[in-house]
Formats: sequence, C-alpha cells, structure tokens
Amino acid sequence: MLSKSQINLLKSLQHKKFRTEHGFFLVEGRKSIYEFADSAYQVDTVYQTYTSDPKLLNLSRKINFQQISLNDLEKISSLKTPQDAIALVKIPDWPALKTETLRKSFTLVLDGVQDPGNLGTIIRTADWFGIRNIICSEDTVDVYNPKVVQATMGSLSRIKVHYTNLEALLRSTGLPVYGALLNGNNIYTTNFGDEGLIVMGNEGNGIRPVIEKLVSRAITIPRAGGAESLNVAIAAAIFCSEVTRNTLK
Amino acid sequence: MLSKSQINLLKSLQHKKFRTEHGFFLVEGRKSIYEFADSAYQVDTVYQTYTSDPKLLNLSRKINFQQISLNDLEKISSLKTPQDAIALVKIPDWPALKTETLRKSFTLVLDGVQDPGNLGTIIRTADWFGIRNIICSEDTVDVYNPKVVQATMGSLSRIKVHYTNLEALLRSTGLPVYGALLNGNNIYTTNFGDEGLIVMGNEGNGIRPVIEKLVSRAITIPRAGGAESLNVAIAAAIFCSEVTRNTLK
Repeated sequence: MLSKSQINLLKSLQHKKFRTEHGFFLVEGRKSIYEFADSAYQVDTVYQTYTSDPKLLNLSRKINFQQISLNDLEKISSLKTPQDAIALVKIPDWPALKTETLRKSFTLVLDGVQDPGNLGTIIRTADWFGIRNIICSEDTVDVYNPKVVQATMGSLSRIKVHYTNLEALLRSTGLPVYGALLNGNNIYTTNFGDEGLIVMGNEGNGIRPVIEKLVSRAITIPRAGGAESLNVAIAAAIFCSEVTRNTLK
Repeated sequence: MLSKSQINLLKSLQHKKFRTEHGFFLVEGRKSIYEFADSAYQVDTVYQTYTSDPKLLNLSRKINFQQISLNDLEKISSLKTPQDAIALVKIPDWPALKTETLRKSFTLVLDGVQDPGNLGTIIRTADWFGIRNIICSEDTVDVYNPKVVQATMGSLSRIKVHYTNLEALLRSTGLPVYGALLNGNNIYTTNFGDEGLIVMGNEGNGIRPVIEKLVSRAITIPRAGGAESLNVAIAAAIFCSEVTRNTLK
C-alpha cells in the first residue's frame, strides 16, 4: 500500500523538473526492469503486485520490493495500459566524456531532437548497431521522459546518453564530425573510416548554423522520390547502418 | 458555417467504419493538401478559415471551398493543435495490381503492421527512396487513419497502398520474395538484383508462419549490440536503403 504522498512523488517523475529535483526516473515493465537491474544503472525500488521477484533478486540484492495494488500501479504509470511492474531508477551521473572514450567508434550527436518517440527509437537503433554513446545538445528532449524510456524498449540500459554544450564538444574532440545535411557527399560512397561523430539535427529545422559550421564533412542520403525529408530516427538508422556495415559482414 | 450534422459526418471519418461507409478521408494542413490536389487523389472539399486558395484553384478547378470558423475547424480536426485547413479526399480505388506493374522495382509488403505512426513513417521513407507501391495484409492498420495520413507528411499522395490477401499475392507474382527475418542472409552481402517484394512483419510477432513459407530469401540486418529487435519502420528503411543504394550513386 502506497501513501498518497508516495503516489504523488512517483507520479511527479513524469515531469523533468521533479526528476531533476529527486534524481530518479521510472522504468515500466518487467522485461525492461531486468535489463536495467543488469546494467550500470541503479534500480532502487520495484513496485509490483507481487512481493518479490527471484530473477531480480538474482541480478541485484540491493533492490527494494514493494507490493502495491493494481489500482496504485495504474496511478503511477504513464502508460494507457500499465505493465506489471514499475521501477524507481537512479538518474546516473556518467563520468565526463573524454575523446579517448569515443575513439575507434561512432557516436551519434543530436542537435535539438524534440520528439520523445524519435529519441527513444534512436537509442534502440543505436543499441542494435553497437553504438555505445549518444551526445545531446542541452535542449534535446530529456532521455528520462517516460515516453523516451518506453520507446527504447530497454536499450537505454546499455547506452550512455550525455547532455552537453555541443559547440564546446565539437571544437575540442579532434574526431571527424559528419553532419546529416542536404547537398553533402553521397552517404553510399563515403568512406567513414573507423571513428567519428555523426550529427543529426532537429525535426523541423535540422542542424543549427553554429553547429553546422563545426561539421567537417556534410553527408546526404540521396533521394529518388518525392518526400521532402526523412524522419530523424530513420535518417539516424541509415547512418548507423552505413558506418557499421563493413564491420557487420 | 457548418451544420451540426456536417460536423458529425466529418468527425466520424476518424473511424474506419465511417470512412468505408462514406468513401472519404481527411487530410490536414495546407502543405499536405497541395500535394494531394496535385496527385492522382481527388480532393472534394477544402474547409478553411479563408474563402478560397489561389494555389489550390490553380491545381484543380474541381475543388469546393468552404469557409468555416476556427471553432468548427477544431471540432473536425484529429490533431491536438489543428492546422490551417482540412480537406475531404475521396478514397481511391486503385486498379488491381498486376505483376507487370511491380517488375523492375522494389515493393514493400507489410504483414500486419499495427501502429499508425509506423505505417505513416514507412510510407514517407518509401517515398524518399522512390518506391511506388506498398502492399498490406488485410489486417494491417488502415492507411486512411488520420494518424497514418499525418505521419506520411504528404507522401501518401505519391504512393499507392494496396490491401490484399498476401498469401494469394505471394503465390502468384513470380517475383523474388525477400523477408525481414532473424537468421537469414546478411543484408549487406545480398545481391537484390533489380526487382522484388520485401516482406516486413508485425511489430510484436514478425511475419506470420504461413507468409514466411512463401519467402524465397530470408534476409537479416546483422546486430552488433544488445537490442532484441529493431522497430519495423527502421528495419523497412534499412531495406529501402540497401535495395536502392546502387542506383543512388
């Protein structure tokens, strides 16, 4: 049984302001919770209609379990059809990014992506292709937004998402900076080498001019039909596929 | 000014039952309406807060214009933030598909895709890559669902979406049938030739066994990371990119 103030606190985590204030976010669904418990994230408490969960206990002895009513579970959930369990997970404070960490790999850099479904899908796709880090501008949608967490389908547990001043970052890394832009080099004939940052822009406005200036190579997905643009998660997926295809043979 | 019964009729088109009964669907936003007016679709009436639209009149003299209040526009709209105009468009009755039409091109075949956003994004992506036809199983989400139409960003005006019995279709075409499956050939080393059908399955369950039996070549997007699966619109995009990449150089 949860008190009214506990329910209010948990519900408040649907808003970024309260996630920042309390330092926690929610993960819904047993399958995703298993993946977070088996990751670098710290699962604090699992709220569920059962008393404990042998599989989770096996993954971590530090997790608290609280049995709650289905009614309370529905009150905390951000989903139309709530799943079987909800976990309170600590917002991590990843060590500051060093260029060394990003060497010999590809990293997605998101400049102002706004749609939670797009960010979630980008994280899930990056995880499929073995990308380990995603760097977001400070105005990119918050990765601990419940819609983002849900759309990652558990992949958020394996990907480190950093928020930073992109201008400062791009000026300092020394890595090749590829940008998804119109009128750039054909992506299919570009040799991406074995490392680099791939900048994707905002849904409506693309990459900001100040960031575009720091792109060392503009890259374009050639168009054969009539659509004016590609969805940003789709474009990001095609970049992930192209930069890794030679290693996936 | 719209009568109450006109408003109810237009609102009812958010549901498939009434779209089928009346033979119409709605397109929202002036930009998409321009694209439909300039296509094989027949735009019947444009409801807007102005009396006419010179650009639309230029595209077709057959369009009716009806000036309505912003309040009425908001009542008809399926969007949280309604756009500036809504068009009543006739549901087309495309000629029956012939194998000849599908030769020397690639066609997406969707087996039970359920999410409107996924179908809309697949149509937009197919349009970018120059794919002209999409064939859906009869239980795939309805393409004239307002969420699908919205997610296509106007691309629906250029793509023909057919609903049919997939089993009968795949048995009869004689074209290569590629299927997005686990444990198939590596997509990056597959020679797709210059024609074929590409079957994508349902979000949760993939391709149905009865359809899988009719796939001549199982194809897999190799995985390097931890995600269990790719979103179907993402997987479809990578297939579109791979089958057309040699023609886009």
